[in-house]
Amino acid sequence: MRATFITAPGDIEIRQIPEPTLREQTDAIVRITHSCVCGSDLWSYRGVKEVPKPLQIGHEFIGEVTQVGDDVTTIKVGDFVVAPFTTSDNTCVHCRAGFQSACQNLGFYRGCQAEFTRVANADGTLIAVAEPRPEQVRSLLACSDVLGTGWHAAVSAGVGPGKTAVVVGDGAVGLCAVIAARVLGAERIVAMSRHEPRQQLARTFGATDIVAERGEVGINAILDLTDGLGAQAVMECVGTREAMEQSIAIARPGTCVGFVGVPHGVQMPLEPYFQRNIGLRGGMAPVRAYLPHLIELVLAGTIDPGLVFDLTLPLDEVADAYQAMDERRAIKVMLEP
Amino acid sequence: MRATFITAPGDIEIRQIPEPTLREQTDAIVRITHSCVCGSDLWSYRGVKEVPKPLQIGHEFIGEVTQVGDDVTTIKVGDFVVAPFTTSDNTCVHCRAGFQSACQNLGFYRGCQAEFTRVANADGTLIAVAEPRPEQVRSLLACSDVLGTGWHAAVSAGVGPGKTAVVVGDGAVGLCAVIAARVLGAERIVAMSRHEPRQQLARTFGATDIVAERGEVGINAILDLTDGLGAQAVMECVGTREAMEQSIAIARPGTCVGFVGVPHGVQMPLEPYFQRNIGLRGGMAPVRAYLPHLIELVLAGTIDPGLVFDLTLPLDEVADAYQAMDERRAIKVMLEP
Repeated sequence: MRATFITAPGDIEIRQIPEPTLREQTDAIVRITHSCVCGSDLWSYRGVKEVPKPLQIGHEFIGEVTQVGDDVTTIKVGDFVVAPFTTSDNTCVHCRAGFQSACQNLGFYRGCQAEFTRVANADGTLIAVAEPRPEQVRSLLACSDVLGTGWHAAVSAGVGPGKTAVVVGDGAVGLCAVIAARVLGAERIVAMSRHEPRQQLARTFGATDIVAERGEVGINAILDLTDGLGAQAVMECVGTREAMEQSIAIARPGTCVGFVGVPHGVQMPLEPYFQRNIGLRGGMAPVRAYLPHLIELVLAGTIDPGLVFDLTLPLDEVADAYQAMDERRAIKVMLEP
Repeated sequence: MRATFITAPGDIEIRQIPEPTLREQTDAIVRITHSCVCGSDLWSYRGVKEVPKPLQIGHEFIGEVTQVGDDVTTIKVGDFVVAPFTTSDNTCVHCRAGFQSACQNLGFYRGCQAEFTRVANADGTLIAVAEPRPEQVRSLLACSDVLGTGWHAAVSAGVGPGKTAVVVGDGAVGLCAVIAARVLGAERIVAMSRHEPRQQLARTFGATDIVAERGEVGINAILDLTDGLGAQAVMECVGTREAMEQSIAIARPGTCVGFVGVPHGVQMPLEPYFQRNIGLRGGMAPVRAYLPHLIELVLAGTIDPGLVFDLTLPLDEVADAYQAMDERRAIKVMLEP
């Protein structure tokens, strides 16, 4: 089959490799109908994260089950499935507490920008849905990571009715955090975004205000919007020190910054959290916990997170997909084998 | 009057200065009957925090009101009062949200290891109580900072019935966090302490287990006690990077480290929080929020936090008080003018 490899920073190529096979009786094999490129894939692409050797890449997909192990009971061959970006047993203490991303049997895919993938703990990982209508495909794919991650930011930040919520970061995750804030009842939703098309999409998703500035000016803009008190729910969806500093500065004392931006070597002083009682919650999103609800919202047409895919390319052009996202020509690229 | 000054690291002296006077009509003057030395005072004493010039020091006291401004309505001359370690109006948005330590009119005392002090926003800061019996004095004084701070650690960590709680740090605050964990219903309370007398006091306060080891060995001991899952409520009561790293490592995914140890230049990488969804909550304790309840618990004899005072000295010997705490000969020293 064809599969995407990153061989060095900036170097993405399609290679022919054998199709995956079942290893455990709890595995399933999925024929991937749609996958995509993640903002976090760009860390390797940009050389921020090391690429020690050629690696298969990709962790977001939807598709059709082609094989299941003998111990798989809830998923069967022919099912159309949505997959979270990690595999989990969904039965351990951490899973039962809603933190499947800390599952005691946590697993990662080998690489899903490909034609097939093996899914460990298929019962605890995959969710079967009716074969989606074409217009539902993008939004189901978005559930796999960016929507679930944006949702985790909102839940971690404590978004709720009547609150002013601010999203730091206008990538696909940040835009999905806007959706989450709207569904969770925030009264005012501020998207911090400098890019006109993303501002537009943020508004479509429910943002009531846009702040284009960053740093001190951006911080002051948020304080102005909140009578100098700070926002009651700040979602950090970038992963840099600058974004975290900004998030802390605009958060109201006693509230939590919900953070889902993947940090790479970011060190933060504890004083700013301490002095104003700003909490920090979040991390790798337990997408599996949110997935049933998110799929329901998508299928009911309540939300349309698939709008973050503003470019679709065939798998063979995956290198262009990375380039488009790296250059911010595309928010998020969907791949079709 | 006599007042304590820190003139340089390691140098504590009593100086004669004028008695404080009312500046605002919302002020009160309090004759201090008991004050004490705080672990955070040791930061300057040890030179970790700069001492740019001689400074009056101390922020914990109880005493009798001797003057009030015209706008003070709930506190009157002759009242015996307990004071939190910061002053607050108790009416602003942050105070109403329970974060008086982030009050929009937050204030700090000039120095309370002295005979008198001026209290700004007396109505929003002080709580009047009946003249305490001698055996209640120490525990009321403990409410002023260490008990309220330990309580904040427990609240921030989400201590609750049935949970396993771990306290990192065996200073007066850590020991009070044990009290808080017990009152808030923790099923198992582990005190991490290397010092036998403090272990003993932790047990008196409700600790069910003691772990004397630190670092990797200490972490593994906690994991052993929790079936490898980590504790559901970890309270960081030290303020060093080592203590924070240890706290994160022993926390169960999805839970929060409640942190109240004052950090000085501590930088923490975000990855450990991110990877296992460990939250961070806490900071400078809003003692005023907890004070009515804590005083009630003390006066009812439910708790006896005053046991952290294992040495009482006259104010004139305040330099010895600092030395005793610095050398860990005393957990906490009470001063009587």
